[in-house]
Amino acid sequence: MPYSEIDQLAINTIRTLSIDTTSNAKSGHPGAPMGLAPASHVLFSRIMKFNPKSPKWLNRDRFILSNGHACALQYVMCHLLGYQMSIDDLKKFRQVGSKTPGHPETHDPTLNIETGAGPLGQGIAAAVGLAIGKAHSAAVYNKPGFDIFDNNTFCFLGDGCLQEGISSEACSLAGHLKLGNLIAIWDNNKITIDGSTDLSFDEDVEKRYEAYGWQILRVENGDSDLEAIEKAYREAIACTDKPTLINLKTTIGFGSQQQGTHSVHGSPLKPDDAVHVKKLFGFNPEQSFHVPAEVYQFYQKRVEENQAVQKEYDAMYAKYAQTHADLYNQLERILNRHLPDGWEKHLPTYKPGDAAVATRKLSEIVLDALCPVVPELVGGSADLTPSNLTRWQGAADFQHPSTNIGSYAGRYIRYGIREHGMAGIMNGLAVYGPIIPYGGTFLNFVSYGAGAVRMAALNNSRVIYVATHDSIGLGEDGPTHQPIETFSHFRAMPNIYCWRPADGNETSAAYLGALTHCDSPSILALTRQNLPQLENSTIENASKGGYVLYENKNAKVTLVGTGSEVSLCLDALKTLKSEYNLEARVVSLPCWEVFEEQDESYRLSVIPDGIPAMSVEVYSTLGWTRYVHEAFGMTSFGESGTAKQLYEKYEFTPEGVAKRAHKTYEAYKDTPFIRSPVRRAF
Amino acid sequence: MPYSEIDQLAINTIRTLSIDTTSNAKSGHPGAPMGLAPASHVLFSRIMKFNPKSPKWLNRDRFILSNGHACALQYVMCHLLGYQMSIDDLKKFRQVGSKTPGHPETHDPTLNIETGAGPLGQGIAAAVGLAIGKAHSAAVYNKPGFDIFDNNTFCFLGDGCLQEGISSEACSLAGHLKLGNLIAIWDNNKITIDGSTDLSFDEDVEKRYEAYGWQILRVENGDSDLEAIEKAYREAIACTDKPTLINLKTTIGFGSQQQGTHSVHGSPLKPDDAVHVKKLFGFNPEQSFHVPAEVYQFYQKRVEENQAVQKEYDAMYAKYAQTHADLYNQLERILNRHLPDGWEKHLPTYKPGDAAVATRKLSEIVLDALCPVVPELVGGSADLTPSNLTRWQGAADFQHPSTNIGSYAGRYIRYGIREHGMAGIMNGLAVYGPIIPYGGTFLNFVSYGAGAVRMAALNNSRVIYVATHDSIGLGEDGPTHQPIETFSHFRAMPNIYCWRPADGNETSAAYLGALTHCDSPSILALTRQNLPQLENSTIENASKGGYVLYENKNAKVTLVGTGSEVSLCLDALKTLKSEYNLEARVVSLPCWEVFEEQDESYRLSVIPDGIPAMSVEVYSTLGWTRYVHEAFGMTSFGESGTAKQLYEKYEFTPEGVAKRAHKTYEAYKDTPFIRSPVRRAF
Repeated sequence: MPYSEIDQLAINTIRTLSIDTTSNAKSGHPGAPMGLAPASHVLFSRIMKFNPKSPKWLNRDRFILSNGHACALQYVMCHLLGYQMSIDDLKKFRQVGSKTPGHPETHDPTLNIETGAGPLGQGIAAAVGLAIGKAHSAAVYNKPGFDIFDNNTFCFLGDGCLQEGISSEACSLAGHLKLGNLIAIWDNNKITIDGSTDLSFDEDVEKRYEAYGWQILRVENGDSDLEAIEKAYREAIACTDKPTLINLKTTIGFGSQQQGTHSVHGSPLKPDDAVHVKKLFGFNPEQSFHVPAEVYQFYQKRVEENQAVQKEYDAMYAKYAQTHADLYNQLERILNRHLPDGWEKHLPTYKPGDAAVATRKLSEIVLDALCPVVPELVGGSADLTPSNLTRWQGAADFQHPSTNIGSYAGRYIRYGIREHGMAGIMNGLAVYGPIIPYGGTFLNFVSYGAGAVRMAALNNSRVIYVATHDSIGLGEDGPTHQPIETFSHFRAMPNIYCWRPADGNETSAAYLGALTHCDSPSILALTRQNLPQLENSTIENASKGGYVLYENKNAKVTLVGTGSEVSLCLDALKTLKSEYNLEARVVSLPCWEVFEEQDESYRLSVIPDGIPAMSVEVYSTLGWTRYVHEAFGMTSFGESGTAKQLYEKYEFTPEGVAKRAHKTYEAYKDTPFIRSPVRRAF
Repeated sequence: MPYSEIDQLAINTIRTLSIDTTSNAKSGHPGAPMGLAPASHVLFSRIMKFNPKSPKWLNRDRFILSNGHACALQYVMCHLLGYQMSIDDLKKFRQVGSKTPGHPETHDPTLNIETGAGPLGQGIAAAVGLAIGKAHSAAVYNKPGFDIFDNNTFCFLGDGCLQEGISSEACSLAGHLKLGNLIAIWDNNKITIDGSTDLSFDEDVEKRYEAYGWQILRVENGDSDLEAIEKAYREAIACTDKPTLINLKTTIGFGSQQQGTHSVHGSPLKPDDAVHVKKLFGFNPEQSFHVPAEVYQFYQKRVEENQAVQKEYDAMYAKYAQTHADLYNQLERILNRHLPDGWEKHLPTYKPGDAAVATRKLSEIVLDALCPVVPELVGGSADLTPSNLTRWQGAADFQHPSTNIGSYAGRYIRYGIREHGMAGIMNGLAVYGPIIPYGGTFLNFVSYGAGAVRMAALNNSRVIYVATHDSIGLGEDGPTHQPIETFSHFRAMPNIYCWRPADGNETSAAYLGALTHCDSPSILALTRQNLPQLENSTIENASKGGYVLYENKNAKVTLVGTGSEVSLCLDALKTLKSEYNLEARVVSLPCWEVFEEQDESYRLSVIPDGIPAMSVEVYSTLGWTRYVHEAFGMTSFGESGTAKQLYEKYEFTPEGVAKRAHKTYEAYKDTPFIRSPVRRAF
């Protein structure tokens, strides 16, 4: 179908609305929306499957705006397409409480925002995750005549996304995995905040993506050659065994007097320039937020066509429910975020007499037990499988079938040595639908992926990081691999659960917590070294985040530990008695965030008034005084050596603990009232 | 010169010593050292300029082992070449207190370890920094007849380094900058911990690096074709306008019965396999750590040749001291880590009446003042120059001269949108010699570079991160850009100074601290929004890390703030008095780490016993109870809106502060003794 005046009018409406949205807010990025208006128009009017009245339709095409600063474009499109986005919402752009924040957020389910974006590179990594999600879901659920999952994933991205390492990681893996349904549209406008890309970015992007195994298409004139844009989209969709990068050459701020320069990138157009653009496009410069009626009608028609497509899909899906009831029921269960009935009975439990085992190994035992009964678990590791122990018995790899080393139905992803990419991809997997992703690396290298971990927390995504080798206890690899500060970082991050289990039951509790907190990511910090199974540790106790492991009415001090230091605290009791004639009680605090959710009276029963509390954890002590009066931890980086040598060097021994517990007692013994730190004034 | 039996004997000695080193430690990675032995032998015996007796010789060729887990190789080479590395040191591999930790560390100046490595990708990024350092230093200090700086930078790296995003970022920039003296040798052994690289990494690496603008060379047989290896090195050196990637095909664990598999990657060889290798290479399998005398002699001869080269250089340098005394004196001053006499007098100071200014702008004023008088400052930004305000007046860009937008003498680096790459490159710049690097990004995106920031702290490198847009105060960009948890992360990291200045004088103090702490990196968190100039804020006061800004004998509570919340605390005094009839004192705590260095009596004078203290900071409160009894901070991510709206929403207003200060007072008023949190039991 040829393009006509209505298409150009719609495109110019996108442009002027983007100008008005940013000008009215006195803040925001008009340039990229103006440049991407044609590509966006063609995409939404001729290519994408979606339904604004059913924004979470299972088989919708996914759209990600990786250059999230251009979000005025997405909001404007939402308005024009009939999502719940009014002109008033556009007028509240970047204001508190609006539907139109400064970068795309996921909190409004009525919009087409699949995952948050803005930190550059995150969107394209999530798009890779969405594409994996589709490939996997199709392999599992599609049956002859039932293409339950056959959507495409479209991602706009800018030069910034292409420069970020996370995109290199994710896109290299996307090429390896031959993700045919992934279509990335590079807004090649040659401008960044500093100015021309010539300042720092003159690599041959097309060639790089070819090297990754992508199909490359180019649109020489993305400003007005709508046929070429459509042709590129269609060629991209037709290519089923490679992701596609469309090199879309555009002019940033198209129509502005400053077009093609960085002055239209990050600030609203000057008033006279806005007038200039409107005149140029035949709009009344006196009017703001004007949408010609025929533009609304045009998009409405397109939406109706789409709704007809969904109607057909719904009929097919209803039939699927009958002919493939098991798969249908499983899918619906997962989409409703219910775990399989009785799944938690598969969580392993341990008795005090049981053998000492490393919590990374205990994690493997959990995965061996759960993965066969929780089919939505899709695991992986950033290359450290034999160390992270993240691959359950009988797992099959997620690989393109042509490789003969797996298939798209496989549930174990070989992420390669790409921690940030893995975390970003998991953000896409988590929101695709029928998948709960987990991924392994060393705890220290979760920090490599911190930018994406943050997005999971911000997006309310259930992503599980299996973070082994969790302290100096990893030993000989030395300080480059021994986390000291990592947990302080994530304990300070909102909406993420940081677990550091002390034994088998606590490890099971950590998985219970991670899987049942549907709106939050979780990090599981796990040891390389063996830990004993503790008395009074139970899944139920640990699920409160903190509990009394060893009670003692004569205690003069409370010792509070996590993970590998809980058994150390227990070991120190004898020394404390024999050397200092002091008795103590011991608390295990595997998850601060869950402990915070308990009421004050429970928290006070764990860490009471009247005696001082001291923490023992081989990390930075930062934050511990939220729970204790004195904190024993690491004040430097670690060193290479055996775990035993290192624990001795830094005095994480019964003697070292007892000595400090005694000092804590001495420091507070004359204090008339010792207030528990869990009491808060506000 | 043809290769002969002695070369093969030396190579096999490297291999068997690597086996013995890891076997004796019962830990470590023998495979890569065995595979890289030929490339290493050729490099050190025929190519590199170095002097084991003068390991920090200014013009030495730099060698970086980016695949740092292969460090047995570097230690073995150090031994054979006559660095201060004995067989006993090799026998202490990976033990506490040894010279031979599990990954290369920089703490021993007698070795050839330029910068720490191990976290994959860090070494190659640092190598890019070293190469920039050389190009810049040569442009500044070389004169006709005086090639003070003409070294090359060699970097071994593995598949893991190539997969990490940081290497993509750094290598793309290296191509843009046409760093001819950078030579990266890819140990292409097709093996990672998970197994074959076919599992996750089948991109065309050569093509990708061509896309970056690198020269590509290939050695088909890196196991034994010494001529080809040497030829590649020489071609790489000859190419002066592009970095070079040598695709060196090797067999991991060459000689082992398990060669070419991942079982030789991360664990010592089995005893019978070690015997097998020794027999294969004609070594006595009963002997360990055996070095044939002729191998020692061979390397000794090579070292002597090198020493002769250094002798010539020294003579030239002595002449340079006379003919170019100014440059010589500047260079020596910098190498001795002295700042220019009186430099600190250029730090701007402010009076209470002066205008309110954003600390990012105050930082720019500092840079405008300092950069002209401190020529070792080499700045830059990850694309956000107009936002970070990191480019001083009159700065010239560091660019290849052919670009006509700068020269190698320029001191402002356009890092592009590559935060991790920037941080990793700065680690190389910091150790090259005559450079103090600083780089700008938003505080939130320092987390993208956290892996490299950690290496700076671990390496004792003076690197300065200019981190603007430091809180919800950045406003409309929203929660994807507003740091909440970032400072908790870095406050928990050993050996890094985290500054959050409240005004102009404190901003000057932050730079004073960052520049004078020669063995530590510093982060400067700076506001987007304007802040008033405070009474009693002085450079001297702020240089103690914390001080009493407003004293009051009648105070019933101490308010402790940082950055933008210090003036808020002052503003709250009036409300506290009028609404609650309470008086307070106000403390500014711009740098916790410096405050920790003060003695207890000073710290108690700032945060005394007897009255409760409450912190006010728009970050996670994690860690604050180290200094205060109650902490007011952010308990969620922020939102899009103006700074004013957001401060009101989260109650960072005089009323919000006063309300909580009153609650703090109420909670503690009946406590018989209020202990200052700065008192520690141990």
